[in-house]
Amino acid sequence: MNVAIICTGDELLKGAVTNTNLRFMGEQLLANGIIPSFAMEVRDGMEAIRDALDTAFSKADTVIVSGGLGPTSDDITKEAAAEFFQLPLVQDDKVHLSLMKLWHKYKEEGRDTPSRFLNQSMIPEGAETLPNRCGTAPGIYLETERGNLLLLPGPPVELEQMFSKQVMPILLEKRSREIHSVLLHVAGVPESEVEERMLPLISPKLSAAYCASPGLVKLFLSSPDMDFLRERLQSVKKEFQKELLNCRHTSLQEEVVRILERSGLTLATAESCTGGLIAERITDVPGSSNIFLGSVVSYSNELKERLLNVSPETLERYGAVSAETCNEMLNGISAATGADVVLAVTGIAGPGGGTVEKPVGLVYTGIRINGENFVTENHFSGNRQQVRERTCAAVLNELRIRLG
Amino acid sequence: MNVAIICTGDELLKGAVTNTNLRFMGEQLLANGIIPSFAMEVRDGMEAIRDALDTAFSKADTVIVSGGLGPTSDDITKEAAAEFFQLPLVQDDKVHLSLMKLWHKYKEEGRDTPSRFLNQSMIPEGAETLPNRCGTAPGIYLETERGNLLLLPGPPVELEQMFSKQVMPILLEKRSREIHSVLLHVAGVPESEVEERMLPLISPKLSAAYCASPGLVKLFLSSPDMDFLRERLQSVKKEFQKELLNCRHTSLQEEVVRILERSGLTLATAESCTGGLIAERITDVPGSSNIFLGSVVSYSNELKERLLNVSPETLERYGAVSAETCNEMLNGISAATGADVVLAVTGIAGPGGGTVEKPVGLVYTGIRINGENFVTENHFSGNRQQVRERTCAAVLNELRIRLG
Repeated sequence: MNVAIICTGDELLKGAVTNTNLRFMGEQLLANGIIPSFAMEVRDGMEAIRDALDTAFSKADTVIVSGGLGPTSDDITKEAAAEFFQLPLVQDDKVHLSLMKLWHKYKEEGRDTPSRFLNQSMIPEGAETLPNRCGTAPGIYLETERGNLLLLPGPPVELEQMFSKQVMPILLEKRSREIHSVLLHVAGVPESEVEERMLPLISPKLSAAYCASPGLVKLFLSSPDMDFLRERLQSVKKEFQKELLNCRHTSLQEEVVRILERSGLTLATAESCTGGLIAERITDVPGSSNIFLGSVVSYSNELKERLLNVSPETLERYGAVSAETCNEMLNGISAATGADVVLAVTGIAGPGGGTVEKPVGLVYTGIRINGENFVTENHFSGNRQQVRERTCAAVLNELRIRLG
Repeated sequence: MNVAIICTGDELLKGAVTNTNLRFMGEQLLANGIIPSFAMEVRDGMEAIRDALDTAFSKADTVIVSGGLGPTSDDITKEAAAEFFQLPLVQDDKVHLSLMKLWHKYKEEGRDTPSRFLNQSMIPEGAETLPNRCGTAPGIYLETERGNLLLLPGPPVELEQMFSKQVMPILLEKRSREIHSVLLHVAGVPESEVEERMLPLISPKLSAAYCASPGLVKLFLSSPDMDFLRERLQSVKKEFQKELLNCRHTSLQEEVVRILERSGLTLATAESCTGGLIAERITDVPGSSNIFLGSVVSYSNELKERLLNVSPETLERYGAVSAETCNEMLNGISAATGADVVLAVTGIAGPGGGTVEKPVGLVYTGIRINGENFVTENHFSGNRQQVRERTCAAVLNELRIRLG
């Protein structure tokens, strides 16, 4: 199966938003052993979309298009696809009926309905609709001689639901020969080392793909032979052991939240250079409120003293970026929140603030667990954002290990 | 000028990272009145890159490629481009010399050098190099009969510097007829309303482009006539007045940080449903440490009581998501930090936690300034992440207005 992705929308080319739909679809496809050949971002225009379809179908047999299915005048993806395949647009009665009901409801409530609202029930002849559980525009699935086309709505919340629940099953069913696959997450090991340690385990019957993000490497294994895959999976688990996340978790923060939930422990954080990023990541995990009490973002020395009880002498003598301050931040956040486990970070994210003795990228990360404090000195490379990301990954991984 | 962008890298198609380079380049181009015709993400492979160049040059006269210029074996963008244009790769002596110096230095320090390190000095015949101030691989600029090609390094910190300082000037010089342009940011007004209010000001001599992100619309004006542009700019400023950000600022958080800096005021935040996002955004602005003291992320009721002194009675009677709790959070964070200005948010970001009375998307945002508290009830639509983003935009915009 050869997949290409087309994302429509001027906003993607104007730098207004990052293309998170592409990332989401890429992640989901990889988890099932599919890597798209290429992706395109194109403007909202008949010619632009037709040209993109032509490019995509010249290289791929399965083309996924996001965006442009809604009721406003720049939503013309269906029209462009119908023209490209020289198919008329016909009404889908079931969708039409449900839109009519909604239209009457809106009218009763005195709400405006876009003039092209009912146009959402028109689909290329021969296509099927994919129900949209989070919005009004259905997805569309069309099999043609040139290949298979999937049209999906652009709003991430609608696309993500439809992609996981409806598109992936269609793709997996279409996949010609059966492949068994598994996705693992290796924490705290560089991608090159993961590749090297996997070498003895690869064989013609087992292929591996790797994908690195800060602090985490995705390791995707696939094989046509289910028993062989199972057997090798055991070897991989033996090789990486505690460096592997639980199979059901896809991020360090998710793993940490679930471990804490299971252990009945609460967490609080004290952040300086990360400015709230760690708390933001943890609270991004649904259900984190079960374990996360909160955070003190002590960006200034004043708040380190006032809220975390870091002593002025320590700040004066060792500086805000020091193992000593990190240690007192741990004690402070622990006392202030009463959490079972706490973590603290203080460092220099840059671009300013670095010195010869304390360069940009110097970060102290600390964890307090069972009444004992552990502080680590780290030297991270990269720009301000990268240092913050790496700090977050490092301290969450350390916490995962200490909890494990 | 017709621009196409190609971003190389398997990681973009595997969902490992979002394509922030595309967003950055799109933003910079828009700020100069250029919108790319399309963009592509392609895999690291000779054929994939050659095919993408072919697609791009069939539609565009200027093609920008990011990634694949480094010293490892999957860095083959130059090789693909040279093959595409049937040009030999030749050594750039100046780059070679500086790489040799670095190579000796690394050797002395006992550091490993990738085997293809010196390959970074090879460029297609007839091309120019663009110095890389943040890394070792130079950028490459090549004028050909099919159009102009710009090859840029993939790491964001290297690309961003090179794009702003070297690529934009080349593009602006190439632009055939002179166009004067200005980029404005309108805060807190929906995109459709911005468009409507701009209608009377548009003319054949003045074109406008719009681009919306949470809480902010970019308004880009351009005209071949400088005096006319200046005159209309005055009318636009009159139309939107306080809804416009300062011309030098590109985000609400930047505007807020600069206003506070100028006024000599300090800021602290108390966050519940945003879980640290507001603090993270503010501390993303370099220099924010001048005004930002810190934040209390009081995710649990317990911390609302312990750190922000919210009374148990208020939590019991009105709930954590209420105007009353928001009000006490303002008082609490103000007392705890001593900041001149504070803000507080509490709400239901979803997906769980909503009720008929208090649905997902209900968020109270509060600001305390000059000893007076202002609390607003908001109803945001969208998923968890969107509710958090919209909360952040709304409270920062309200703060901007109250400070203004």
